[in-house]
Amino acid sequence: MNEAYNALKERMAEIADLNHAAALIGWDQQVYMPEGAAQEHGNMLATLGKISHEKFTADETGKLLQELKAELPNLDADSEEYRVISVTAKDYDRATLVPADFIVEQAQVTAVAHQAWAEARAKSDFSIFQPHLEKVVELAQRYVTFFPPAEHPYDTLLDLFEPGMKTADVQTIFNQLRPQQVELIRAISERPQVEDSFMHLEYDEKGMWDFSVEVASAFGYDWQRGRQDNSAHPFTTSFSADDVRITTRWVSDLPYALLFGTMHETGHALYEQGVGSVWNRTALEGGASLGIHESQSRMWENLVGRSLPFWQHFYPKLQKRFPSQLGNVSVEQFYRGINKVEPSLIRVEADEATYNLHIMLRLELEIAMLEGKVAIRDLPALWNAKMEEYLGLTPPNDAKGVLQDVHWSGGMLGYFSTYALGNLISAQLWEKFKSVEPDIDEKMRSGDFSSLLSFMRIKIHQHGRKYEPQELVQRVTGSKIDPTAYLGYLTGKYNAIYGI
Amino acid sequence: MNEAYNALKERMAEIADLNHAAALIGWDQQVYMPEGAAQEHGNMLATLGKISHEKFTADETGKLLQELKAELPNLDADSEEYRVISVTAKDYDRATLVPADFIVEQAQVTAVAHQAWAEARAKSDFSIFQPHLEKVVELAQRYVTFFPPAEHPYDTLLDLFEPGMKTADVQTIFNQLRPQQVELIRAISERPQVEDSFMHLEYDEKGMWDFSVEVASAFGYDWQRGRQDNSAHPFTTSFSADDVRITTRWVSDLPYALLFGTMHETGHALYEQGVGSVWNRTALEGGASLGIHESQSRMWENLVGRSLPFWQHFYPKLQKRFPSQLGNVSVEQFYRGINKVEPSLIRVEADEATYNLHIMLRLELEIAMLEGKVAIRDLPALWNAKMEEYLGLTPPNDAKGVLQDVHWSGGMLGYFSTYALGNLISAQLWEKFKSVEPDIDEKMRSGDFSSLLSFMRIKIHQHGRKYEPQELVQRVTGSKIDPTAYLGYLTGKYNAIYGI
Repeated sequence: MNEAYNALKERMAEIADLNHAAALIGWDQQVYMPEGAAQEHGNMLATLGKISHEKFTADETGKLLQELKAELPNLDADSEEYRVISVTAKDYDRATLVPADFIVEQAQVTAVAHQAWAEARAKSDFSIFQPHLEKVVELAQRYVTFFPPAEHPYDTLLDLFEPGMKTADVQTIFNQLRPQQVELIRAISERPQVEDSFMHLEYDEKGMWDFSVEVASAFGYDWQRGRQDNSAHPFTTSFSADDVRITTRWVSDLPYALLFGTMHETGHALYEQGVGSVWNRTALEGGASLGIHESQSRMWENLVGRSLPFWQHFYPKLQKRFPSQLGNVSVEQFYRGINKVEPSLIRVEADEATYNLHIMLRLELEIAMLEGKVAIRDLPALWNAKMEEYLGLTPPNDAKGVLQDVHWSGGMLGYFSTYALGNLISAQLWEKFKSVEPDIDEKMRSGDFSSLLSFMRIKIHQHGRKYEPQELVQRVTGSKIDPTAYLGYLTGKYNAIYGI
Repeated sequence: MNEAYNALKERMAEIADLNHAAALIGWDQQVYMPEGAAQEHGNMLATLGKISHEKFTADETGKLLQELKAELPNLDADSEEYRVISVTAKDYDRATLVPADFIVEQAQVTAVAHQAWAEARAKSDFSIFQPHLEKVVELAQRYVTFFPPAEHPYDTLLDLFEPGMKTADVQTIFNQLRPQQVELIRAISERPQVEDSFMHLEYDEKGMWDFSVEVASAFGYDWQRGRQDNSAHPFTTSFSADDVRITTRWVSDLPYALLFGTMHETGHALYEQGVGSVWNRTALEGGASLGIHESQSRMWENLVGRSLPFWQHFYPKLQKRFPSQLGNVSVEQFYRGINKVEPSLIRVEADEATYNLHIMLRLELEIAMLEGKVAIRDLPALWNAKMEEYLGLTPPNDAKGVLQDVHWSGGMLGYFSTYALGNLISAQLWEKFKSVEPDIDEKMRSGDFSSLLSFMRIKIHQHGRKYEPQELVQRVTGSKIDPTAYLGYLTGKYNAIYGI
């Protein structure tokens, strides 16, 4: 066992190094690469990806895992060894069950589909994207057949991003959430709108950047093991817990996007910086799932960064940086302004109260597509009908409707619900945290986030991919993923802000 | 042949991608890596290096090369195929003749030797480094035995950095050069010293950076395929001709180091950016040798960047940026100041007239060490005696003497002479260029360097590693590497400046 286990770890360490190098190339691509080097970066990524895949799917890996899986019954299910073997074996099965020529076909189809989507969106003409989306869906249907039958075929896609999560569970959660979130938005719409014109004045980039750095530092981001740069699309990337980098961007007519974006990415980065070194260079490094990851980013961005106690500490500092914009705005006015609720067409611009509805719409359409219960040509009409039903808005064109997101063009079906699950989990973790740290509001008012970070480090971060999301949430909160805490948080917050 | 040739190219392309990725990790290490990530970058580099080495030295590579070498007699010796096969085969032989356990031992010895050297230099105590240097030399002596016997054992080391170059040739060249360079310095020392106090005033970093960027752009550096950043030790790195990056640094009490350093690195970078795309992802990408590379960097830094015509164009621009420092300094005074000759103890701070003498001293000692004709413990005394003989100076301690350079601690014997050869080659190429472009001084006075770059592109850059240095210099200038042109350049320049 020991010999095989060490051989597996050595093999996985090399694969991790290759993947880290690919991540660094990806970071460089987005941040510092000269324009002319796109092809050359593509070559490097293709070669590293190929070698990493070959090493992982090699027969030697399979043989080691076969031998080690036979030892599982003799191991403590909570031990490092048990989890390394079982998680790696699951990854291996997924990587080897899908035929290599399918992967090539998928890469080709999505490369073309992505271009078609970009053109379709630019021209707001769904018919350009339609035949490509049909192929993407057909590929997803075929992909599912390579795996043992699940309760629902969509489970196999969901499992890619949210391991162990079932379609039925997500549907149950969303069905409970939807009517109450729709009702909350309706109630808000009947109240006078809050004032947020101060958010649309002219701000200075450097001032906002420096303030964001101050906030990230206060959250506990370790600059010895990270850095912040600019990129067109903000992201977090990590090459180990010792090198976790975030990016942000400055959009002059959305000056607060840099600040809240930095809080969001800092949340992701705190997670990655907190993964236990025991998982370094194994398949278990990094976060448990996209949903758990999003629970961290959204917690720091929303539950902390859009809370009144947070701003009771930080607002005077922000005012001092921007006296002409904020001198006459009270902290309560500021708090209401940054929490304004307004149904809108675009998911990435949605506020906390409306966001999940954008996700539910997409999940319902994805499941219907995979089940073959909807003709792709009918998708725009279905999209618009659901937008009207959930948010009371009808997109004026498909660019602002069904064509707005890149995900489907890249074949990423199964991804969207992780965003909404992240919101729900963030509130569950927060509720649990508050039960052990009732003074968190007082702590935040003095700029002290250490007990919050410490709780997340111990309960979530250190475990890396050791536990699947449902198991992890259950361990920390005593219940599975559930919308109750989030609904309580949302209604409490907005009832107060809008005087409902 | 075609099938094997394509298989070789495909194999080498993947190896090139791995090496490019390693170079990017190396760049990141020097430029943007957070402090905490050193170990993780080391892991990535070790794994990429291992896989690249394994792929290159694999039996499959050997079999392909065996088959292709048999075809060489049927190929035009100047063809792409002929050169790809023969250069790759030479690299393969070198990589496979050295046993793997020797490489491991060398890595271990030099890792420890490097630390010992750093401590020895800090304490100016050669005895700390002595036993490690003894091991390094012993390893070099053993390394040579893995190769077919050469005219001189040092040839094998030289060939690592200056392919095809013979020790006897370098000795002949240096023996011709040394007395004349010593005589030139003596003559200069009898003349009144030039005034350069304006170089030691306070300058603004941004102004110097921006001016350097202006100069690099005028030289023809393509910013679409490169970028400039800060690093502790300036360097040029390339991941293909499409991504060639330079770095510089600001030392406030040596303000002109940033400018001349940028010119130097731009020279290296112009070479790499000019390598023909036909060599991309083959063993022949990059420069022909360190000496040829240095001929380019030193040409742009010295023959162009320290010339009067260059400054007749650029000096008004520099004066405009730094009116308080340079307002009362004429262009002729400025030109004399930046060309001040003063024998000094430290190689990297040496001027054009004295630089080569530092190199000759090192070459003589390296050959004697390899031949076993000198006891390592006697090295400091030998060093100091030669310094006195060539430059009329005696180091006050070993830190400013035998311990000043990092090279030996890393096992890099055979490296130093490439610096001096670069100087000689730069003057030979310049002489040839002037014969086809007699108006170069006039062109430089109007800031036009396009004919110079174009000449180097066609004669040197595009060929990558196709020709060995002697063959390349012969093709361009009609003669092998020879000190005559450089001596003519030096004496012409300094006789005028110092009125000899």
